[in-house]
Amino acid sequence: MKYNPVTNKIIAKLVKIVDSKNVLTDKEKIEAYSHDEMPREQYAHMPEAVVTPETAEEIAEIVKLANKELIPVTPRGAGSGLSGGAIPVFGGIVISVEKMNKILEIDYENMVMVLEPGVVTNDVNELIAERNLFYAGYPMSLETCFIGGNVAENAGGGKAIKYGVTGRYILGLEIVTPAGEIIQLGGKLVKDVVGYNIKQLIVGSEGTLGIVTKVIVKLSPLPKYKVDLLVLFKDVKSAISMVPQILTKTGITPTSIEFMDKLSVQTSCRYLNEHLPYQKAGAMLLIEVDGNREDHVSDDAETIGELCLKNGAIEVYVADNYTTQERIWSVRRNIAEAFKVVSPHQSLEDIVVPIAYIPDLMPELALISKKYDIQIPCYGHAGDGNLHATLVKNPRSTMKEWYEIEAKSLKELYESARELGGTISGEHGIGSKRKDFMEIAVSKNELDLMRRIKKAFDPNDIMNPGKIFDME
Amino acid sequence: MKYNPVTNKIIAKLVKIVDSKNVLTDKEKIEAYSHDEMPREQYAHMPEAVVTPETAEEIAEIVKLANKELIPVTPRGAGSGLSGGAIPVFGGIVISVEKMNKILEIDYENMVMVLEPGVVTNDVNELIAERNLFYAGYPMSLETCFIGGNVAENAGGGKAIKYGVTGRYILGLEIVTPAGEIIQLGGKLVKDVVGYNIKQLIVGSEGTLGIVTKVIVKLSPLPKYKVDLLVLFKDVKSAISMVPQILTKTGITPTSIEFMDKLSVQTSCRYLNEHLPYQKAGAMLLIEVDGNREDHVSDDAETIGELCLKNGAIEVYVADNYTTQERIWSVRRNIAEAFKVVSPHQSLEDIVVPIAYIPDLMPELALISKKYDIQIPCYGHAGDGNLHATLVKNPRSTMKEWYEIEAKSLKELYESARELGGTISGEHGIGSKRKDFMEIAVSKNELDLMRRIKKAFDPNDIMNPGKIFDME
Repeated sequence: MKYNPVTNKIIAKLVKIVDSKNVLTDKEKIEAYSHDEMPREQYAHMPEAVVTPETAEEIAEIVKLANKELIPVTPRGAGSGLSGGAIPVFGGIVISVEKMNKILEIDYENMVMVLEPGVVTNDVNELIAERNLFYAGYPMSLETCFIGGNVAENAGGGKAIKYGVTGRYILGLEIVTPAGEIIQLGGKLVKDVVGYNIKQLIVGSEGTLGIVTKVIVKLSPLPKYKVDLLVLFKDVKSAISMVPQILTKTGITPTSIEFMDKLSVQTSCRYLNEHLPYQKAGAMLLIEVDGNREDHVSDDAETIGELCLKNGAIEVYVADNYTTQERIWSVRRNIAEAFKVVSPHQSLEDIVVPIAYIPDLMPELALISKKYDIQIPCYGHAGDGNLHATLVKNPRSTMKEWYEIEAKSLKELYESARELGGTISGEHGIGSKRKDFMEIAVSKNELDLMRRIKKAFDPNDIMNPGKIFDME
Repeated sequence: MKYNPVTNKIIAKLVKIVDSKNVLTDKEKIEAYSHDEMPREQYAHMPEAVVTPETAEEIAEIVKLANKELIPVTPRGAGSGLSGGAIPVFGGIVISVEKMNKILEIDYENMVMVLEPGVVTNDVNELIAERNLFYAGYPMSLETCFIGGNVAENAGGGKAIKYGVTGRYILGLEIVTPAGEIIQLGGKLVKDVVGYNIKQLIVGSEGTLGIVTKVIVKLSPLPKYKVDLLVLFKDVKSAISMVPQILTKTGITPTSIEFMDKLSVQTSCRYLNEHLPYQKAGAMLLIEVDGNREDHVSDDAETIGELCLKNGAIEVYVADNYTTQERIWSVRRNIAEAFKVVSPHQSLEDIVVPIAYIPDLMPELALISKKYDIQIPCYGHAGDGNLHATLVKNPRSTMKEWYEIEAKSLKELYESARELGGTISGEHGIGSKRKDFMEIAVSKNELDLMRRIKKAFDPNDIMNPGKIFDME
């Protein structure tokens, strides 16, 4: 073990930096910082101390101390991650940004907001809706996740086909580097080509290159109207082949094109006691269009609906009011929860493939499912080729059997995605969970470049070590 | 001088790699590779040899040789740059990708194209328009520039407010690193959060981290209709204050919001013998909206036009046919050319400020203009805060005087942008031209991080040295 322990002397120094109320060492209190949304029994690791600083300067002092004393630091947002990014796998100090939750500025003229990293993503939108603005980064966990975590993971979500992912809306960052320097990157600027794009290198770097202490986000005009279409297809292939057709034949870019296979819809409907007409369908698309005029939005929905019907859709249900829309989206959002009733043990994945190759993935999933006797519901962001193929433990297996099955089937799943020109994560990140699978996704040369970049930022490897890749 | 010369022995090795037809050493022939679109007498530098390889493997061999022998290599696209990115400031070998100009694949199902770096940007669009697709990266020089150069500079352009800049459309890259390795980054994937985003670090790195040998671009649905509005305002402030209002009050994101001050319009109109009604106006906005239905697009144009008239616009001219649209855009596009008649010596700039602060920049420009007795027309991409404030040499000054004036006034211009929270380049890049001004734009700590990243890629500093920053 190359790291030093968090001794009482270190604790005393931490207390001096952030005050005793912001240093936690009590086992019961710090347990909450040992895991994210992945199964605890499998991935949790206790920190030695948790600090909850209130300023970037405090974070800089803590990091300087850790860097000098060779103690690992793990930055933490809301803990809503799905790859272990916030888990202190080597112990050390967890730096939680939960108390840095102020909205520092709403600049309507420049259409930007300046946020501390601990702001809950959706709170941003609630503040600015009345001014016809919204923040278009849109992770599915937006009611609990923090903007700082969104930046660290380059969070995706259900509206990426039209609005892109988090990185598109990050105009400026303040970070504390592993050496404890505070650096401003970018600003209230839409364009900026001055030198290397370190800002976008930080986005998605999972807290391994620095700690985000301030975020300048771009705001977008809030669309006033939306219509959802639930479109039933006989099979996955007919559903997916609609995606490029919708885009090119209608010219409309929907807000969302979500995909659900029959198993997903069925299980979620049972869980919610909801009645969607899934019996007839092998697969469904949930298509949302938005805009600023009611007539334009309904024109667009009609155009897409007609195109689907002309191309083999069994039926198109239109949801143009809040209640119906919520009913449908609730089925989509609750798929993961619903499968927890089948088995609390799952591996929630987010592989990506080129959009047109989604149907080719299905026989692969069927093979893995059969081989290991597990259920693999498949749903997700069809418009981005980003699928939550989820491995669900067979209730009859022991935990020991499940861990073995999980490791093997993950490898096969990732290799299938890779063979189709895809990759192993589209929005959840690598973290500690997928670290050992990196060589499936990237070449040795690329991985080596990543290590050299890490070394350029963090020569002592103290910033969130054990994530994405190991340095050796 | 730390680099070694290109000896006859090196030339012989180059010939062995790419064949003699692809190695140029003749002074007359290589002169064309000594400059970009900036004034030659001021910025040109002769290479010692120019190679025109046809494959990534050949480039890898050349780079390995240069790395071993400590010879600088300068990658070159179409030479349409405006910051010296393609100028071999230390001599050495220019690697021109002009013969790597094949369109390798049009993948309609996945809505991507695979291109060699020497493909002319606009050629892409001509090929796919009939399939209702287009490439939305849109530099103003798209009829001559290469896609590889667009990637190197993260080229912007006139449609960025709606479509963003080049980086948004780059899904995959193949690069040759300074060590001569060939690396594949990304793929036909819209989402990808696997490890560090090296792909987007390469975008905009001005050929200093590697040579792009293949580009996978995302295609977008081609909008079928567009309407342009030429909106006259009494002054700059009333024009610019419309930008956030248009976005938030109408909810419409126009394709372009271009700004022209009176001096720009006047000079361009005289040059073209065109008659736009600029006499009454202190500033103009050129607003374009596009979409897939004629009625939607004309609704949007009408909404924006009405909002402008309600908020102090003097007049709104509607251009809804190709001929009138071309007349107006021609005035916008020819401003730089028109000022060459006033004086062939100019400094074409592309500073950026937060959009709402554009009016605050105007008195600063007036001060610099008065102080140094030079004209400074101002026009550009108001929707992005990205302005081509152009320093035009007073015909009465000597060249010696002009170079002094240029250096001083550039510094003041950049400092003015910086004081408003802006930066020194939004789309042209740093290159050799703005290298010495980097410390105005970024902190010492950030610059140091950039140097460490450069070192991680290119320990011998052979890849396009003398650009963005010096290593010492």
